[in-house]
Amino acid sequence: MINVQQKAADVREASRILYSATTEKKNLFLRKLAHYLKDQRRNIMIANRQDMEAAQEAGLSKVLLDRLLLNEERIEQMIAGVHAVIALPDPVGKIVSRKKRPNGLIIERMRVPLGAVGIIYEARPNVTIDASILCLKAGNAVLLRGGSEALCTNAALVSVLKVALEKTGLPASCVEFIDSPDRTAVTEMLKQDKYLDVIIPRGSQSFIRFVAENSTIPVIMHGEGNCHVFIDKSANLTMAEEIVFNAKVQRPSVCNATEKLLVHKSIAKKFLPRIAKRLQEAHVELRGDDYARSILPSILPATEEDWYREYLDLKIAVKVVSSVEEAIQHINKYGSHHSDAIVTGTKSVGDKFLREVDSAAVYVNASTRFTDGYEFGMGAEIGISTQKLHARGPMGLEELTCTKFIVRGKGQIRK
Amino acid sequence: MINVQQKAADVREASRILYSATTEKKNLFLRKLAHYLKDQRRNIMIANRQDMEAAQEAGLSKVLLDRLLLNEERIEQMIAGVHAVIALPDPVGKIVSRKKRPNGLIIERMRVPLGAVGIIYEARPNVTIDASILCLKAGNAVLLRGGSEALCTNAALVSVLKVALEKTGLPASCVEFIDSPDRTAVTEMLKQDKYLDVIIPRGSQSFIRFVAENSTIPVIMHGEGNCHVFIDKSANLTMAEEIVFNAKVQRPSVCNATEKLLVHKSIAKKFLPRIAKRLQEAHVELRGDDYARSILPSILPATEEDWYREYLDLKIAVKVVSSVEEAIQHINKYGSHHSDAIVTGTKSVGDKFLREVDSAAVYVNASTRFTDGYEFGMGAEIGISTQKLHARGPMGLEELTCTKFIVRGKGQIRK
Repeated sequence: MINVQQKAADVREASRILYSATTEKKNLFLRKLAHYLKDQRRNIMIANRQDMEAAQEAGLSKVLLDRLLLNEERIEQMIAGVHAVIALPDPVGKIVSRKKRPNGLIIERMRVPLGAVGIIYEARPNVTIDASILCLKAGNAVLLRGGSEALCTNAALVSVLKVALEKTGLPASCVEFIDSPDRTAVTEMLKQDKYLDVIIPRGSQSFIRFVAENSTIPVIMHGEGNCHVFIDKSANLTMAEEIVFNAKVQRPSVCNATEKLLVHKSIAKKFLPRIAKRLQEAHVELRGDDYARSILPSILPATEEDWYREYLDLKIAVKVVSSVEEAIQHINKYGSHHSDAIVTGTKSVGDKFLREVDSAAVYVNASTRFTDGYEFGMGAEIGISTQKLHARGPMGLEELTCTKFIVRGKGQIRK
Repeated sequence: MINVQQKAADVREASRILYSATTEKKNLFLRKLAHYLKDQRRNIMIANRQDMEAAQEAGLSKVLLDRLLLNEERIEQMIAGVHAVIALPDPVGKIVSRKKRPNGLIIERMRVPLGAVGIIYEARPNVTIDASILCLKAGNAVLLRGGSEALCTNAALVSVLKVALEKTGLPASCVEFIDSPDRTAVTEMLKQDKYLDVIIPRGSQSFIRFVAENSTIPVIMHGEGNCHVFIDKSANLTMAEEIVFNAKVQRPSVCNATEKLLVHKSIAKKFLPRIAKRLQEAHVELRGDDYARSILPSILPATEEDWYREYLDLKIAVKVVSSVEEAIQHINKYGSHHSDAIVTGTKSVGDKFLREVDSAAVYVNASTRFTDGYEFGMGAEIGISTQKLHARGPMGLEELTCTKFIVRGKGQIRK
């Protein structure tokens, strides 16, 4: 246990150096990291083989084994990721607002690193590099806790990170790694509020919930995505069909895939048979409310529970509504406030939807699948926040910083 | 217990209406509130008298009794506060950024209400009005839990809030109030993450700590203020004297008052006797490190614990340092990251201090006492955050909102 606390303290200490590291120095570190990842790829793959063998023996599923695997190609992807982060502008030091007060004080808000970030993640070892480089570019030191299946791989990657830090003249403790497979190490980490400024958990919903409930450190949560597309009565139905199909089928296992289709009553008879055919051809299972089933009698009934569910699968539930107001109410009540879209030909209806739907990303006439740091032009992504405090939606470099007030005076005192 | 959960659910429900209430409607509510506060002031004072009598019987201290008291003048101040909030611009609906992506999507970030805010506070009943009006103007519904000593007063104030809401045509549940004096009601409130988006605790440090440790809802914390002034070797010593005196003496009981004086070695012999005399005349107790005591032999020694302490009293600890680097290191290590100042005549030294001190507000040549929503031009303040996520420093209306992405397309789908 002392181990976790000591590592958190070391990360905090290192964060003070990183706090005022120049962009040049941080980029030099990233270039050295790219070099040593290439140089050390054999050792990384040997470590990964150990993890893979243990995982096979333990009977991990094919999906999990694939997530765990690091081969030459995936290491090349990591290195490409490092170069992409070098190219991103450094958010630290940016002045985001400025005002002069009547007493002559000049008050600015400057973007600065958060400080010490804790990241807790599951199987995929690429997160060790992807998350670390984003944190470090934003001036944050990082305490990592990866999945126990990837212990050897993660240890190898962290030692490469540390070599690159040392060769740059930065403290090796800018990245620390908790190598205990013991779950209590996580609980211990969540209590280090003296040293860590924020915890970012990546993993299953139940895991993220566990973190939120047990952490005394602020948590940035990546919640679930029960996303909706609403087809308004004035929608272009060809556009509607393409958007629903893309939002559901293009990659059903991710959080920005659509799980619910709401259709305006006055076009339901026309639109539903058409979209049902298209979806069913792609092996999507449809469920529906009574009205939808009166048009599509072969589909299953949707239960109350269906409206809350994130399927992450080739399933969709269909509801017929009488108005945009009913659609908005349904989405705000049953949705997870992630990504929701309307297809409409009426600007005022679209604007109403944009204004009143309380989600991280709200769309008019586009697929929900665009909620993503790269698609939003952030250049990188550390996750998608569905909470409201600090960061909401895709999180890039800026979301790994905070601001402070800097105030310049000429001797002003308060009366 | 069901009572707390039901009220949280009612507040959440009401927040959906408030989410898209117009500025006109919110200001209409505020005008009606000002009217009914004036109209009902006798009833409010009768309720307050009940609380005062019970508090006197319970033997509350004079300070606490004074905090609890509501008289005609204080109700007038509340009403003035309502008019001040009417005059503030509505942050909701403001577009804070806009970009067009290569695929034609237009991505904007729009400021929107947080939703449902929980406020837990202690004795002072004016918070019932002050906090509610800021939350409501920012489009948030609010669940209040005030101190048990102020139960009757708070109930009277809440009933005025509800009348004003109803007369405006807004749901009365935009403000709900937990009237149980039982402490377990607080614990229950902290678990309502299904309904509440954020908790803002106001009170003692131990109380805020209790909230942070027990809440499953994100908390915005108002931490302590162990503030520093560092006098650099190039400082104008007259300016330095005025700033230190103001920062320590003008109002020692508040979080932005200065608790520590750091002095550059090369001016210590000249400056310390002068500032010590001025402070001692104002009955400030000085403590010092060995070097400071070699110049001021009569003062007490400062212990390691002193460097961490927030006195909130006429006390100050003095340390002599050899460089601005040492001052920055000391502040970042022992400080509470609230407000810290340098007095210097050298621009590069001031800039270094502004950049490297990791506090919510960092000053060059001004008193730490300016860290305040009004002084920073926010027009109002719901507290001062010393945490890094979401809001840092004085929090005004904007800090009671979040943003969402609104995306406009022409049928774009993801490849």
